[in-house]
Amino acid sequence: MNMMKPLDPTEFRRQGHMMIDFLADYYENIAKYPVLSQVEPGYLRKLMPSFAPLNPEPIETILQDLQQHILPGITHWQSPNYFAYFPSSGSTAGFLGEMLSTGFNLVGFNWVSSPAATELEGVVMDWLGQVLKLPKDFLFSGCGGGVLLGTTCEAILVTLVAARDQMLSKIGRENIGKLVVYVSDQTHCAVQKAAHVIGIHPTCFRVIKTLKSTSFTLLPESLLSAVRTDVRKGLVPCYVCVTVGTTSTTAIDPLGPLCKVAKEYAIWVHVDAAYAGSVCICPEFRHLIDGVEGANSFSLNAHKWFLTNLDCCCLWVKDPTSLIKSLSTHSVYLENSASDSKQVVDYKDWQITLSRRFRALKVWLVFRSYGVANLRSFLRSHVEMAKAFEELVKQDKRFEIFVPRNFALVCFRLIPSAVAKIGNGRVQNGHIKAEDVANEINRKLLDSINGSGTVYMTHAIVGGVYVIRCAIGASLTEKKHVIKAWKVVQERTDAILKQLD
Amino acid sequence: MNMMKPLDPTEFRRQGHMMIDFLADYYENIAKYPVLSQVEPGYLRKLMPSFAPLNPEPIETILQDLQQHILPGITHWQSPNYFAYFPSSGSTAGFLGEMLSTGFNLVGFNWVSSPAATELEGVVMDWLGQVLKLPKDFLFSGCGGGVLLGTTCEAILVTLVAARDQMLSKIGRENIGKLVVYVSDQTHCAVQKAAHVIGIHPTCFRVIKTLKSTSFTLLPESLLSAVRTDVRKGLVPCYVCVTVGTTSTTAIDPLGPLCKVAKEYAIWVHVDAAYAGSVCICPEFRHLIDGVEGANSFSLNAHKWFLTNLDCCCLWVKDPTSLIKSLSTHSVYLENSASDSKQVVDYKDWQITLSRRFRALKVWLVFRSYGVANLRSFLRSHVEMAKAFEELVKQDKRFEIFVPRNFALVCFRLIPSAVAKIGNGRVQNGHIKAEDVANEINRKLLDSINGSGTVYMTHAIVGGVYVIRCAIGASLTEKKHVIKAWKVVQERTDAILKQLD
Repeated sequence: MNMMKPLDPTEFRRQGHMMIDFLADYYENIAKYPVLSQVEPGYLRKLMPSFAPLNPEPIETILQDLQQHILPGITHWQSPNYFAYFPSSGSTAGFLGEMLSTGFNLVGFNWVSSPAATELEGVVMDWLGQVLKLPKDFLFSGCGGGVLLGTTCEAILVTLVAARDQMLSKIGRENIGKLVVYVSDQTHCAVQKAAHVIGIHPTCFRVIKTLKSTSFTLLPESLLSAVRTDVRKGLVPCYVCVTVGTTSTTAIDPLGPLCKVAKEYAIWVHVDAAYAGSVCICPEFRHLIDGVEGANSFSLNAHKWFLTNLDCCCLWVKDPTSLIKSLSTHSVYLENSASDSKQVVDYKDWQITLSRRFRALKVWLVFRSYGVANLRSFLRSHVEMAKAFEELVKQDKRFEIFVPRNFALVCFRLIPSAVAKIGNGRVQNGHIKAEDVANEINRKLLDSINGSGTVYMTHAIVGGVYVIRCAIGASLTEKKHVIKAWKVVQERTDAILKQLD
Repeated sequence: MNMMKPLDPTEFRRQGHMMIDFLADYYENIAKYPVLSQVEPGYLRKLMPSFAPLNPEPIETILQDLQQHILPGITHWQSPNYFAYFPSSGSTAGFLGEMLSTGFNLVGFNWVSSPAATELEGVVMDWLGQVLKLPKDFLFSGCGGGVLLGTTCEAILVTLVAARDQMLSKIGRENIGKLVVYVSDQTHCAVQKAAHVIGIHPTCFRVIKTLKSTSFTLLPESLLSAVRTDVRKGLVPCYVCVTVGTTSTTAIDPLGPLCKVAKEYAIWVHVDAAYAGSVCICPEFRHLIDGVEGANSFSLNAHKWFLTNLDCCCLWVKDPTSLIKSLSTHSVYLENSASDSKQVVDYKDWQITLSRRFRALKVWLVFRSYGVANLRSFLRSHVEMAKAFEELVKQDKRFEIFVPRNFALVCFRLIPSAVAKIGNGRVQNGHIKAEDVANEINRKLLDSINGSGTVYMTHAIVGGVYVIRCAIGASLTEKKHVIKAWKVVQERTDAILKQLD
């Protein structure tokens, strides 16, 4: 038997071109697939052999199986008709960057393992930081710096560990049970998970209630009141997560005033701008992160709305030493003169994992392929499409926009009075409230929309109200898709209201 | 201005093909580049503009800059002359899998977000588990299951959190300060970092000394003795990491006997087979993980020696519920009927992060493109090449093989007597020991080898001795490269010994 040659350039070239064509065809035809996969749990295990193949199979066969067996189980996040969760922002430049990263296949844990990986990351993090007009002390060109992680969950975990250790170094490690972490009831669940992971006592995880009347934002006075109560109890406020663009409704916590409260108690402020951070490269949105100079760390997911494909979380910190103190490791086999010289960044000490991919390439390619001016226009186009969708919703009196639209997410629902007739019997019987009926009908409506396969939206429940979320930002989405999406909503509404009539 | 179309299929196809050719050319010419990048710290910042480009640039210009500015800063992990650290195991199949994952660009946090992503992961993890002959209770087809994470650091972190929480649920959360984690002085630093992150008290991180006479393995009697001492002190043993193939020398901790000790004290056993796990698909190596039935979790890095490209860590656990209890989160906006039905796996609850890439594709492609039989032969070919290198070293009396070779890593050095003449003056003056001289000369030798750019090896210091590590396993490496590598070592040795004569 001839020994296989898994990186033979000729075969790499042949198969690589085939895969490019497969994916280009996929994008050409993507609108034809049901956006939300319509398979049943367990569908694939039935189709797959129980054992790994002993012998090789040609790429042609594998691609056929991919088309036949895998594609039906894919939910098409790149579809122009994808409006669920938040977008997973893909682009040719992001894709090429991943190709390069995968092709070089280097493990850039420290500078010497591949200097360009570390240095390009420093360059692009400064570029993006400047475009966002982050204060200079978040940049390498100041005294701070940025790092590319996989996801916001990692950004939160590493900053939380740094904040914990900073505080414990003052009050003693044995007092870990006294540290308090603050979030709002709209904050991403990543903070709760990270707090649990690092050993914050569950009774010290403070979830502050938000209200519809203040657009589900975390109020500085609520934070202050919670902090004061904890301090009186002898607890130690440690970390607050401020969100610019919450997951449910893109609520914008008032960063400046919250930082003021935090400063008084030396609380670490992390700004989670996972979704909305990217659009702050547009001057008209930048004011939403005013006050960031009072924060300790700031992160956004470039894979959500900055075209880098998954995964790519950009984290900036004012004090990299705080990360390094908590996360550095020493291994003899990684010793090298560049690290010893202290002239280089070793990113392994800025993150949880040792190994790391070369994510900077895709950020670099996105910047260079599109340019900042085009990127701004492109993000604005999503906001414009969201405005158009919002207008359509407003014109239909059966619906309401549930919270003010801030970016390119529209939260809407069928209003209780529009479905009152249906629920009326039950409401009169006292079994059920009008709001509950509305929730139930909106849930049915969303199921019906998604079951159509023509669009995919998701939901949130805020202040007890079930709302449908239409998140615009898939890279292939054009205005016509948004208009069609609204048509689908209306058609399905008509059908449901008629059916229940 | 026309709005940019970042996922235009025509442009995607054109640029994608260009990038495939770029990378295929790169592999064709890879042996011409210095393996270890020879740039100085800060080289790239000088070459890069201080600000992000405002306007787009053509891909042709970007590729030129890549070639001219980035490539010199790359350490070529895919070079056939790369023998450093452990390999970053790349292949066409792994690359195609990443292309697909990046192209679909879906975020498979739970089943419904893309059923195929979850289901294929379950399938390939069972395939690989079966090929490794893991006990059925680590597989989905038993009562366990596997998950694809990024790196071993994540596998260790999630299992450590699960072990911590399992123990604290018995002894009370307030006793976190009593939990003890055990490793050897050869265990990967990931465990120390993870223990720190999850709040294990630094005084409760037990590093057990290993000895050259027992090949730097963790001895069951040493573990038992450490555990007993801790129990007597009122501490609570919680977690031990057993390594099959340590980073420095690929030492193999005796899994079976260590599990017996652990069982007696209900200690969670994690098996870190990051490097050597892959080769256990060969029957002749499988016995090295005998006893795994006594462990709680087992992980290997498929990106180290299973051709999946970075990153891809395979983790199996006997009790997925223990992970889920520690790591599950609830977010209203992720609620769905499939999750409610409990019939599906939601991998977000098996890991730190919420978002996750579709890594199963590359494992699937590697299995299908190469087949288990070829994969076995390929891994064996690396072991054979290492044996050949070992023989060459043995034939040169100036050198010794420092520890027995277990897999495809050879740890060797110039022996003290070979360099005694050089150090002699200083040794006689009593300033310095013969072993220290040997360490110094071996370090110089490695610097000289790596400075040549023709090969790249790294070092370890074990038992106070500086050894050179030659890790064979880069996908392009053939026997001729190994022979050449040894020639480089000898030439550089001659030069150094002559120079210092």
